[in-house]
Amino acid sequence: MGSFVIRGNLCYCKDCNSISIKPHAYLVCRDGVCAGIFDTLPEQYAALPLTDFGDRLVLPGMTDLHLHAPQFSFRGLGMDMELLDWLNAYTFPEEAKYAGLDYADRAYSQFVSHLRRSVTTRAVCFATVHAPATELLMEKMEQSGLVSYVGKVNMDRNAPDYLCEASAEASLDATEAWICATKERFSRTKPILTPRFIPSCTDGLLRGLRKLAEKYDLPVQSHLSENFGEIAWVGELCPDARFYGDAYDRVGLFGGDHPCVMAHCVHSSDEELELMRKNGVYIAHSPLSNTNLASGVAPVSRYLEGGLRVALASDVAGGETENLLRVMAGAIRASKLRWRLLDQQVKPLTVDQAFYMATLGGGSFFGKVGSFEDGYEFDAVVLDDTTLEHPQELSLRARLERCIYLADERHIAAKFVAGTRLF
Amino acid sequence: MGSFVIRGNLCYCKDCNSISIKPHAYLVCRDGVCAGIFDTLPEQYAALPLTDFGDRLVLPGMTDLHLHAPQFSFRGLGMDMELLDWLNAYTFPEEAKYAGLDYADRAYSQFVSHLRRSVTTRAVCFATVHAPATELLMEKMEQSGLVSYVGKVNMDRNAPDYLCEASAEASLDATEAWICATKERFSRTKPILTPRFIPSCTDGLLRGLRKLAEKYDLPVQSHLSENFGEIAWVGELCPDARFYGDAYDRVGLFGGDHPCVMAHCVHSSDEELELMRKNGVYIAHSPLSNTNLASGVAPVSRYLEGGLRVALASDVAGGETENLLRVMAGAIRASKLRWRLLDQQVKPLTVDQAFYMATLGGGSFFGKVGSFEDGYEFDAVVLDDTTLEHPQELSLRARLERCIYLADERHIAAKFVAGTRLF
Repeated sequence: MGSFVIRGNLCYCKDCNSISIKPHAYLVCRDGVCAGIFDTLPEQYAALPLTDFGDRLVLPGMTDLHLHAPQFSFRGLGMDMELLDWLNAYTFPEEAKYAGLDYADRAYSQFVSHLRRSVTTRAVCFATVHAPATELLMEKMEQSGLVSYVGKVNMDRNAPDYLCEASAEASLDATEAWICATKERFSRTKPILTPRFIPSCTDGLLRGLRKLAEKYDLPVQSHLSENFGEIAWVGELCPDARFYGDAYDRVGLFGGDHPCVMAHCVHSSDEELELMRKNGVYIAHSPLSNTNLASGVAPVSRYLEGGLRVALASDVAGGETENLLRVMAGAIRASKLRWRLLDQQVKPLTVDQAFYMATLGGGSFFGKVGSFEDGYEFDAVVLDDTTLEHPQELSLRARLERCIYLADERHIAAKFVAGTRLF
Repeated sequence: MGSFVIRGNLCYCKDCNSISIKPHAYLVCRDGVCAGIFDTLPEQYAALPLTDFGDRLVLPGMTDLHLHAPQFSFRGLGMDMELLDWLNAYTFPEEAKYAGLDYADRAYSQFVSHLRRSVTTRAVCFATVHAPATELLMEKMEQSGLVSYVGKVNMDRNAPDYLCEASAEASLDATEAWICATKERFSRTKPILTPRFIPSCTDGLLRGLRKLAEKYDLPVQSHLSENFGEIAWVGELCPDARFYGDAYDRVGLFGGDHPCVMAHCVHSSDEELELMRKNGVYIAHSPLSNTNLASGVAPVSRYLEGGLRVALASDVAGGETENLLRVMAGAIRASKLRWRLLDQQVKPLTVDQAFYMATLGGGSFFGKVGSFEDGYEFDAVVLDDTTLEHPQELSLRARLERCIYLADERHIAAKFVAGTRLF
């Protein structure tokens, strides 16, 4: 976590409406924190080490607010079902393999190595129900230099025998032991409570998790209103809940005093959205996954205009790639088809909104993260787009747009997390 | 155009419903044509040179049935408008630059080099109105080793002054001169008549092109029923046409005696579709473009079930990439959102249908192309998916599916067109 200066074409958001671009500007990092953007480097910083990235684009590191690390192994596979069948046919059998640490070691090494090379600097991850493999994943994430929350999953009902935890008590005991083992062990990697979703968790389990959230001051992540079949099932399982999110809220796992990420929110009612707004719940918008599993398209520009906290998520392996640039393009695309096919009242997403969600929108879950303004942690990715050939002059804005549609890990020339250069 | 044998995991279609997979099989090429698939190589071929591609996947080369070569320069840009505004704001100003051969040389070199490295072995391309630049593109395509049709565009109305041809007669004269200059000049690269679309072409121009089609026995390509604004405009311009396609048909430019590609067909009426079926018109389905420009989603599985000829197209630069694997995934994805958001009567596309469209579906426009069955021209791409790491055993079918979602030019280990190895 150093103090230094980089120079390049800085592209970042101050809000959800527009991207600021500073050509050939200096960005100062002091003790891991952004300390100023300058056209000419002030004398006071002249002694700091300077890296000039020339004509390259410098973006804030991106936050992936929802992904399943154990599913990375089957990314790009099994896209022929909707959510509940997909869980039973593909996801649960794969996740069961993480009972074995050898398999987990091999699989998580591949996952972490890909994530490290991507534009992602921060992530909020599901692991599996297995505490040892989850701790192993946390070790690997810590070593990668990325900053993350990782959750041991809780499931004590409606899961196959080979994956279901024996009881709420057993699940809670294993979870508390895992929290105690990991809470202070890492500097960049922290536990997050992770009830899979309402159908997998008894009320007793959810209430116990609420107690753990209080006792250890932990954030919470889960799934919400992704798919019609799932929503109907939650309605049957929780006849007293006013809406899906209320089933989390009535046990105290829906934001407010503990930060909370809910993935998807494709079909959230106005009442559910209003409670999320009030409680500051983060929506992890997962457009590739919601498309691949034919779940639908969340009206994201409406959420943004309504002041909800919306971030982007790969949702690997409902989404087939960890590349958040591809997720940004997917978000824009899905919003256009929603506009065309379903509802012209909700505008398609702009490039600026997608960029905001991938940077500042999700980054704020980690504090002052996701921008280059003063006081933000110094997360940055440097893109070299020279192999994306073009015969004409292009503005920096145009080059950034092209990268959103076309760039991948090949184009990342350097990556910084909280002031440390990873490569 | 040689005779040789390759060995690998062969993946190909015999029809639009299923992919055949032959593990570690021999594929014989005799004089550029597929001459048998064998588990054990028959004695009669033992003397032919053999290349063993080991555990790699071998797919038929793919056909891109519609793309705009001059638009490759702005791929990934200008995705914030619908078709007609997009043409005026981005496309026409860019295409005007191809009046200069220096610019065309630089831009087309980049385009052809990318296409050569892709999974595409055959393509049907729009150029611009400029005959010299179009001939230059044809030279470069010929040198690439790919097989293609390339069209000098015709536009004599409703185009900006800087791009509009002076009259139908001037457009036809330039087109005939270009045909004569190029028709016999190349072995792999042939001219195709290319009225841009009905709004850009007077009836006189279209009738003249019909005469050129007859005189020189040429195929035809154009656009059809892409966007609501466009369709309404055609209705105003051609009040006597029963539907958009009829405006081509009544001048003899809608299949039948001359092969014809119509790009898009997103909003085609039943009457239009029936005429396309009867006339054998090819539909170039362009899902990335139709999504990027918010045009909509063609009900492609219905077209396939109805016996229409449907192929895939990148439609660069409405589509942002020349990578047909990405277009296959995009077709599946768009069909899922159509199913979810608009019409559950039309099933989402399967992986097999997408694969068929990219290989045999489009290949047949070039004759016996797009499969490994006996008598098909030997077009093949060899995919090395070893960098798409996975911790578990995967079937060949699963590996192929992953490549559709995840692979790009990095994963192409070898490429053959009509029996010639390009790399």
